[in-house]
Amino acid sequence: MTDKTEFAGQRIVIINPNSTQAVTDGIDEAVESLRFADGPSIDCITLTEGPPGIECQRHADSVVDPLCDLITREDNSANAFVIACFGDPGLHSARETTAKPVIGIAESSYAAALQLGELFGVLAILDNSARRQRRYVCQLGLADRYVGSLPVGLGVTQLEGEAVAERMIKVGRDLINRQGADVLIMGCAGMARHRAQVEHALGVPVIDPSQAGTVQAIAAVRLGYTAPKSPRPN
Amino acid sequence: MTDKTEFAGQRIVIINPNSTQAVTDGIDEAVESLRFADGPSIDCITLTEGPPGIECQRHADSVVDPLCDLITREDNSANAFVIACFGDPGLHSARETTAKPVIGIAESSYAAALQLGELFGVLAILDNSARRQRRYVCQLGLADRYVGSLPVGLGVTQLEGEAVAERMIKVGRDLINRQGADVLIMGCAGMARHRAQVEHALGVPVIDPSQAGTVQAIAAVRLGYTAPKSPRPN
Amino acid sequence: MTDKTEFAGQRIVIINPNSTQAVTDGIDEAVESLRFADGPSIDCITLTEGPPGIECQRHADSVVDPLCDLITREDNSANAFVIACFGDPGLHSARETTAKPVIGIAESSYAAALQLGELFGVLAILDNSARRQRRYVCQLGLADRYVGSLPVGLGVTQLEGEAVAERMIKVGRDLINRQGADVLIMGCAGMARHRAQVEHALGVPVIDPSQAGTVQAIAAVRLGYTAPKSPRPN
Amino acid sequence: MTDKTEFAGQRIVIINPNSTQAVTDGIDEAVESLRFADGPSIDCITLTEGPPGIECQRHADSVVDPLCDLITREDNSANAFVIACFGDPGLHSARETTAKPVIGIAESSYAAALQLGELFGVLAILDNSARRQRRYVCQLGLADRYVGSLPVGLGVTQLEGEAVAERMIKVGRDLINRQGADVLIMGCAGMARHRAQVEHALGVPVIDPSQAGTVQAIAAVRLGYTAPKSPRPN
Amino acid sequence: MTDKTEFAGQRIVIINPNSTQAVTDGIDEAVESLRFADGPSIDCITLTEGPPGIECQRHADSVVDPLCDLITREDNSANAFVIACFGDPGLHSARETTAKPVIGIAESSYAAALQLGELFGVLAILDNSARRQRRYVCQLGLADRYVGSLPVGLGVTQLEGEAVAERMIKVGRDLINRQGADVLIMGCAGMARHRAQVEHALGVPVIDPSQAGTVQAIAAVRLGYTAPKSPRPN
Amino acid sequence: MTDKTEFAGQRIVIINPNSTQAVTDGIDEAVESLRFADGPSIDCITLTEGPPGIECQRHADSVVDPLCDLITREDNSANAFVIACFGDPGLHSARETTAKPVIGIAESSYAAALQLGELFGVLAILDNSARRQRRYVCQLGLADRYVGSLPVGLGVTQLEGEAVAERMIKVGRDLINRQGADVLIMGCAGMARHRAQVEHALGVPVIDPSQAGTVQAIAAVRLGYTAPKSPRPN
Repeated sequence: MTDKTEFAGQRIVIINPNSTQAVTDGIDEAVESLRFADGPSIDCITLTEGPPGIECQRHADSVVDPLCDLITREDNSANAFVIACFGDPGLHSARETTAKPVIGIAESSYAAALQLGELFGVLAILDNSARRQRRYVCQLGLADRYVGSLPVGLGVTQLEGEAVAERMIKVGRDLINRQGADVLIMGCAGMARHRAQVEHALGVPVIDPSQAGTVQAIAAVRLGYTAPKSPRPN
Repeated sequence: MTDKTEFAGQRIVIINPNSTQAVTDGIDEAVESLRFADGPSIDCITLTEGPPGIECQRHADSVVDPLCDLITREDNSANAFVIACFGDPGLHSARETTAKPVIGIAESSYAAALQLGELFGVLAILDNSARRQRRYVCQLGLADRYVGSLPVGLGVTQLEGEAVAERMIKVGRDLINRQGADVLIMGCAGMARHRAQVEHALGVPVIDPSQAGTVQAIAAVRLGYTAPKSPRPN
Repeated sequence: MTDKTEFAGQRIVIINPNSTQAVTDGIDEAVESLRFADGPSIDCITLTEGPPGIECQRHADSVVDPLCDLITREDNSANAFVIACFGDPGLHSARETTAKPVIGIAESSYAAALQLGELFGVLAILDNSARRQRRYVCQLGLADRYVGSLPVGLGVTQLEGEAVAERMIKVGRDLINRQGADVLIMGCAGMARHRAQVEHALGVPVIDPSQAGTVQAIAAVRLGYTAPKSPRPN
Repeated sequence: MTDKTEFAGQRIVIINPNSTQAVTDGIDEAVESLRFADGPSIDCITLTEGPPGIECQRHADSVVDPLCDLITREDNSANAFVIACFGDPGLHSARETTAKPVIGIAESSYAAALQLGELFGVLAILDNSARRQRRYVCQLGLADRYVGSLPVGLGVTQLEGEAVAERMIKVGRDLINRQGADVLIMGCAGMARHRAQVEHALGVPVIDPSQAGTVQAIAAVRLGYTAPKSPRPN
Repeated sequence: MTDKTEFAGQRIVIINPNSTQAVTDGIDEAVESLRFADGPSIDCITLTEGPPGIECQRHADSVVDPLCDLITREDNSANAFVIACFGDPGLHSARETTAKPVIGIAESSYAAALQLGELFGVLAILDNSARRQRRYVCQLGLADRYVGSLPVGLGVTQLEGEAVAERMIKVGRDLINRQGADVLIMGCAGMARHRAQVEHALGVPVIDPSQAGTVQAIAAVRLGYTAPKSPRPN
Repeated sequence: MTDKTEFAGQRIVIINPNSTQAVTDGIDEAVESLRFADGPSIDCITLTEGPPGIECQRHADSVVDPLCDLITREDNSANAFVIACFGDPGLHSARETTAKPVIGIAESSYAAALQLGELFGVLAILDNSARRQRRYVCQLGLADRYVGSLPVGLGVTQLEGEAVAERMIKVGRDLINRQGADVLIMGCAGMARHRAQVEHALGVPVIDPSQAGTVQAIAAVRLGYTAPKSPRPN
């Protein structure tokens, strides 16, 4: 039997790269079901230097430096990092910054979707998010399983309230009925609180990206994968 | 905060579809690090009707009926099933048999590999396994991330002993240096005991499929994804 | 000139893996135009152990063992086998069972479609068949030529009668007009009798899978291709 | 039972678009095994206007007009045409010229290869043929099953003699052992006489393109597929 | 600093392979903005042997010989050739005919589109053009960026007049709104005069293929790329 | 005839995002052949805030903000921007920052390569650059034309001197002979001075990315393509 003392005190740090605390709180709540008595602690941190929501590429690129700085500050007390924004901003820069595993929640969501259905679609926040998501899915080589992204038409800070879930359900229905998806991904960490309602209404698996990323973080710290070779200048 | 009483008594059943108890024992040991005090129990069961090793398509097809029968017998006391053979035998039949999540360890391994590197390769047992794996990777739409499978040239029941790890390391080196892999998957549940040694020698992440499948099973029972619509005759 | 005495007495065995004799009879009639005076005899056999129709993955997997047993019994008196179910159940197991050529009618239909148009679509029986077909087309690496499968919504034993042809025509029209297909495949051996009517109504080539598979069987026995290396455990 | 009187007098015309009669003779011999007592007659015609061998794109393009003229002249007495050059010169122009089926032997060879192995390679005549073949395989959407083409380094009129077979075997071995092919295609109609020897030496299926095209022509005339909609100016 | 005397007297020859002078005139006008005081001269020539419009594959194949003859005649006084028909007729034959760069305007348009948006669509003239375009896009390996071609339903000689632009705008709107294109290509050199109006109405980049090809020709003569190895018989 | 007064005073700004003036000087020299008497002026600017060389993802991400600030400052006096680093750092952020065309030199190089050969390879600076390039090629959907990237093993500031060209030639030979490339791209703007020598030695087209990007910038300013819809938050 494995000696589990090596796991004592493990800590996963989830970073919300936008500065909206309500989003961080939603993530924190969503990952509660992944906290175990003798499992890694899971701390959710707001990147205060970030914009209220990451809604364009410029926003995404602008958080990389403070995000990496935060990782450096937390590096001694963390066993894995999760970047909790669906654009995976700074993912590869972060992986150069620390030898600890760094998980991108979009990457993890796509990997999870492959196991929950044949064809996945994404509930995007805005129209331009859909364009970025297509580029990323292609980069990951997963285009054959992707039916597309459809925007709900709301920014990151507009994702609270019952009307939001209704819009997500409507857009999700289009992804299922018109585009053929049989599994959906919520394309923003700020949508976390709507997962149960949307999934119940649509009858297909709905993936919350922060949950998917945290699952991978737990796997990383418990299974101890060798960190990929650092792609820093060599 | 989530009320976790709903998780009490959850149980994951891992089925080794070959009849070799040593393989089941290796799996049981490998997933120990994924057992949590208040997490789901994880039971490993040997399919006694299976052949000593699943080494060709005929073997794989022959276990589907007893495998599904076992699932039916365990259905009332299980929350998720893991089919612990790298060919994912009977995966879609099993998903028609139970409404509980059924995880295929090859599918989960490929999904895990996507998050641990750019290009994955598989340590196959035999030459014909490599052919089946290529077909499956193509079916999953993941060919752009796959460098190929190389056989170590040993059957399922020949996977014990130090010499095996040495062969795996040699073949793994070819996958890395000649074919460009930066993450490896062990292509048989019976290789579980060699993971640490192979990973240490090669310096890249090495995925044990039973571990990868169990991670997904834990996610399934804790996050409660809606089961995909049953594809039974409708 | 080739000495054709080597071809004397050649026999192709077509196996209908479901137990519905009417389906076997329809196949027998459909391949009549491929019988030549001095060509191979073509015998159609019903797998009595099979279910009335193969309508889900569990059905498909369940026929593999009796199918392979039948092949073994017929092996001495057959020169090639055709598995006449559009799911190609047991295809690779059968290829391990005999050194004779084994043809899968779905595989042959897709190959035929490539030569008859730019983009093919499939008339599936049920919604879940469509999902299995997509997986198989991807496995074969043919997704770029595939517009999709649409179900006619009838089981294998419901495929007789004029109303069936009407439904097939309606669904075929959607595959052509909405999805862009210019060649269609009938996704069940039990649809054989409707080919002429559907093709006439739609004005595009319509492939009967049993016919497509038998063409390939004739090629195999007359051209004498080396059997692929057996992928049995080595 | 089908009334076969409709098949009486059917005739397949195979056109060798180069002017080398020895190539036509080789094709004629190769398709002998596909002649049946009550099957279609199969006539092989040399395009006298063609160059001695089609060895570059300019050659291929130059034969289209005389090839289409020949088809027009034969149209009343033919039920199907086979263009017996591995570049499929003029295939789509020919399909606009006649309402009868027109078969390209490269297209048919690729379709046949899909059914005889997992990965196919092509024995090309010259280095520049390999480049054209790659473009064509990509056009057909079959790149995932193609390991590549390797030249034997001989022109169309240099393909007679024992030494040729030896070179083909050597190149074929590279396609199998280095590039992973398990089925080979002879990339020139002029290689027909070497098939048996090469296949015997290599132990994998070897496809003669003229044979593959003729199989498809027989299927076309016996199964009576609706001709694809003419893509002439509309 | 580069000594630019080497560029003196450079001349680009644009060949319109159809015999309609109005099309040549439209091209000439369209490339005016690419003429520089000390840049290459750009001459537009009509292939008088061509048909009034190239509207099917037979047309395309029929111009190859006279096109190559024209190239041979102009070879001493040209530094680059542009084949100004969206089917790129004779492109590879022409590249075998001269050591000078030969540009295909379809190839250049697709390359330009990659830099102006995420997903491109083509305004085709006729329905059969759309089929040929799909084949070509696949051959070039660009299918992942292509949403399809839609016909405006007019032949090459019917492309003058205000009503044409209206139809192009209507079809372009479908490519954008229904198929997701964010950049359009005009699929005929004869559409040149409508570019400004169509682009203004639709608000996305619209590529005139003759302009795109001429840009590449200027690059070729000013940057002096080594000609690709001639694929003539070797 | 087009009134060319609209082109008067056009200016292209090429930004070298690293702070090494020698690299900027090399770019300036390389684009000299694209300067015309009455064409756009082409100014090369060094981003003084950048690192000496952009050699990892962190470097690339770190220049986005100052790069966008520079674009904002130059916006009133520029008609197009070229980001002259082969990683295309900040490309999409820059496109959100200005309504003027922004060209990425890697994107333009890949587009150019498609027109100069069948299969392209990249001369990378470092091993980790090769990994980033693969991701980007996949994102662009061009993997079918890409044979890979091989590192010359030198950083951005080590690219001066005769020995560098020798190494590039050696690596280029591997890309051609072992991996099948017939066109090469220099994977760093700092390699500009070696193009002539490398191309002469290898006999295939070699693309300098700054030249390729500038060609596209000239096309953009002379042809006046509508700017893509800004993907700013909407």
